[in-house]
Amino acid sequence: MADLELIRGLLAPADSTILLLVLDGLGGLPASRGGPTELEAASTPNLDGLAAEGVTGLHEPVGPGIIPGSGPGHLGLFGYDPLKYQIGRGVLEALGVGFELETGDLAVRGNFCTVDAGGIITDRRAGRIPTERAKELTEELAGIDLPGVQVFVEPVREHRFLLVLRGEGLHEELADTDPGQVGRAPLEAIAESAEARATADLINRFVDEARERLVGRDPANMIILRGFARRPDWPLFSDVFGLRSVAVAHYPMYRGVARLLGMEAVEAGASLEELFSALEDVWSDFDFAFVHVKETDEAGEDGAFDRKVSAIEDVDRYIPRILALEPDVVMVTGDHSTPAVLRSHSWHPVPILLRSLTARPDSSNQFGERDCLQGGLGLRRAEDLMPLALAHAGRLAKFGA
Amino acid sequence: MADLELIRGLLAPADSTILLLVLDGLGGLPASRGGPTELEAASTPNLDGLAAEGVTGLHEPVGPGIIPGSGPGHLGLFGYDPLKYQIGRGVLEALGVGFELETGDLAVRGNFCTVDAGGIITDRRAGRIPTERAKELTEELAGIDLPGVQVFVEPVREHRFLLVLRGEGLHEELADTDPGQVGRAPLEAIAESAEARATADLINRFVDEARERLVGRDPANMIILRGFARRPDWPLFSDVFGLRSVAVAHYPMYRGVARLLGMEAVEAGASLEELFSALEDVWSDFDFAFVHVKETDEAGEDGAFDRKVSAIEDVDRYIPRILALEPDVVMVTGDHSTPAVLRSHSWHPVPILLRSLTARPDSSNQFGERDCLQGGLGLRRAEDLMPLALAHAGRLAKFGA
Repeated sequence: MADLELIRGLLAPADSTILLLVLDGLGGLPASRGGPTELEAASTPNLDGLAAEGVTGLHEPVGPGIIPGSGPGHLGLFGYDPLKYQIGRGVLEALGVGFELETGDLAVRGNFCTVDAGGIITDRRAGRIPTERAKELTEELAGIDLPGVQVFVEPVREHRFLLVLRGEGLHEELADTDPGQVGRAPLEAIAESAEARATADLINRFVDEARERLVGRDPANMIILRGFARRPDWPLFSDVFGLRSVAVAHYPMYRGVARLLGMEAVEAGASLEELFSALEDVWSDFDFAFVHVKETDEAGEDGAFDRKVSAIEDVDRYIPRILALEPDVVMVTGDHSTPAVLRSHSWHPVPILLRSLTARPDSSNQFGERDCLQGGLGLRRAEDLMPLALAHAGRLAKFGA
Repeated sequence: MADLELIRGLLAPADSTILLLVLDGLGGLPASRGGPTELEAASTPNLDGLAAEGVTGLHEPVGPGIIPGSGPGHLGLFGYDPLKYQIGRGVLEALGVGFELETGDLAVRGNFCTVDAGGIITDRRAGRIPTERAKELTEELAGIDLPGVQVFVEPVREHRFLLVLRGEGLHEELADTDPGQVGRAPLEAIAESAEARATADLINRFVDEARERLVGRDPANMIILRGFARRPDWPLFSDVFGLRSVAVAHYPMYRGVARLLGMEAVEAGASLEELFSALEDVWSDFDFAFVHVKETDEAGEDGAFDRKVSAIEDVDRYIPRILALEPDVVMVTGDHSTPAVLRSHSWHPVPILLRSLTARPDSSNQFGERDCLQGGLGLRRAEDLMPLALAHAGRLAKFGA
C-alpha cells in the first residue's frame, strides 16, 4: 500500500538513521535441482548475524510474476509504487549516462541510422558504429540551434545517443520518429496532445537540421528518436519520509534514480573498498543512506553462479564497517532477483533483512531465500519496506487516537 | 493486483505450456480437532512429489473471509478479480445448463409459480413441479413471439427455467418481477434506466403472454423472473494472457465460465478416465488447459470426509498421465475450500502447488494445508496465480528498464 501522503502525515521527529544496502539482483535459484541458491551457498557470517538479530522476509518489487527493471525495482525499495511512478525511456537513458535532468527537461533516446538516397532506412543502428565515432556526431548535433530551448546531445554507446531539450512548456506526448523497422522513412514527430504541438515543431526542426548535417556521412547519415519523456515531478523522498538522504553508488543509473527523488548522490569508485569508504565519508551528514552494489547482478546476468556467491561473500566482509557507523536501522536486500541459471532479472521474491533494536525475533537466523520464508516480515510488496524502516527508526507517530 | 492491461502489455512470445488442474472445493478442515484435513489425510505420492519439486502456498479466491461461489472462484484462478468481474444470476443460470450465450444476449432466471384467482402468488415454486413437467411448459413458453428478438426458454430443474432474449439493444437494468414472497402479485418489469425501457416492454409482453398460455394449469399457472443479466463483454483470456486456451470439464457450469472468457471448451464424460483422456486428445492444440474435477466438492458438500479423501487419491493416480504431456508449468489447486465438516463452500485459503523448472525450492514437500504454509508462494489472492504461471512459463517481458 505505502500511501505516500499517509506516511508524510505521520512523520515524527527523531535523530535516528537508516541504512539501505542493496545487492543488485540478490535473489537467486539453485544451480541444480534441490541445491542452494547463490545467497544460500555463500558463506555470510555477518549477514547471518544480522538475520538472527533482526527480522527477515521476502519482497516482490513490482508484483506477482512481474520481472522488474532496475528503475522500478529501486522505486519500490524507496517506497514508491512502481506501477504508479513510471520512468519514461528517455529519462532512464539520461539517468544511465549520468545526465542531470532539471524539472521540465524533455529527454529522448536517439539512434544513428542509415538511410538510402530515397530517405528509406536501411539500417536502424548504422552498423553499430563505435561509441567514439558517435561521440563526434553528437558534438555535431549539439551545435543545432532551436528557438527558446537549450539542446544537449550526449553519446550513450555505439549508435545510441541521448537528446535533451531544456526550456519552458515542453511536452512529452509525442509519437516516436523511429518506425521500428527498416524499409520505411523516419516518421515526423506527431503531437499526441494539443499542448505538445510546439514541442513537435521543435523536434521536427531538430531532425531536419540533423539530416542536413549528416548528409553524405557513412554509415550514420540520419537519426531516429523514441521514448519522449519529461523529467517527472514526483513527491521528494526527503519530504515524504522526512529524511536527509544520500545515494552512494558506482553506476550513474542508480545515483540518477535517487536524484530523481531528490536524494543527494555520491559517486564511488568501482571497488567495494571505495564504495564503503565513500559511505563513511558522508554518513554523518545524513539520516538515510542507500548504498548500491552492482557486482551481484552482473554475475547473475553473466550466468556466473560462483562469481555471484563470491560477490555476496565480498559484501559480507564489509558488514562490520557498516555496523561501526551505528545506523539505527539496517536493511539489506536486492532490487530484484537475478538467478545465474536464468542469466537475467526474474520475478522471484527477493530476500530482505531488517535489523534494529525493535525487530521482533523470528525463526530465521540465516540470510537465505528458504530461511526468509520463516521470517517475520513475510512476503510483501517492496514499497512496504520504507514505512517499516521508518517505524523501526522511531520516526512514525500513532495513526488515530 | 493482477492488472489485466499490465499483463497484456508485458506478454512475450514463447512455446511453453501451462496446465491448471482444479480439484473443486479442495481445501478442507480436520474431521476432529487436531486431525488431518482431507488433503492431508489423503495418500498422494504424486502430488507430494510435485510439491517437493515445485513451490507451494495458499490462495484466497475472492478475499479474506469471503466464501466464493463457483463462478468467482474460477474467475480468480483465471486471473480476473472476482470483485470487478461479476457474473449476473441470469448468466450463471445459462452457464449452468450449458446454454451458449452470444454477445448482447439477455438472460434471466425464471420460476414457475402458483397464483390464485386474484393473481396473488400462493406458492413461489409451484409445488416444485417435476423437471419433466416444467420441460413441457417451457416448450409452450418458447413459442411466444416477441418483435425483433429471438426467445429461448430452457428447463433447469423442478420449477426453475432459463429465459434468454437475443437481439439488438437489450439492456439488463430491470427490476425483478419476483416479489420475493407469497401474498403479493408478480411485479411489472420496471426499467431502471432510460435505455432499458424497450427491454422492459418486451419482458412485460412475454410475461402477459405466459400468463395467458398458463391460465388454468395446476399448479404452475404463472411465472416470476429475477436476475436480468446480459452476457458480459470482458477482456478475453486468450488476449490478456496470450494463450490458446481450453477447458476440459464434465459439468456445463465450468465449461461455461471458461467460454465466457473466450476459452474453447471440451465436454468430458463423468469419470476421471474420460476427463483425462479428453485432455490428452486436445492437449497438443493448446498452450493452456484448465481441467476441472468435481468429485472433491461434491463429497465436501455431502459431508463425506472419507469420500473426499478418496476423490483426492483418485486424482493423484492420474498425475503421471498429466506429466507425460510435458507441460512446462503445472498448477494444482481448488477454486475454494469445501470442508466436509461444514458441508458447504468456505472462506478458508486453498492449497496451491506450482511446478516448473524455475520454481524456487521451499521447505514444503507434501501437498497439504499445513505444509503449504511453509511454501514459497505465501498466502495470496487467487488472481495473482496466472501472472506467476506466465512468468514461470517464460511468457512475460521485463517491466521497465
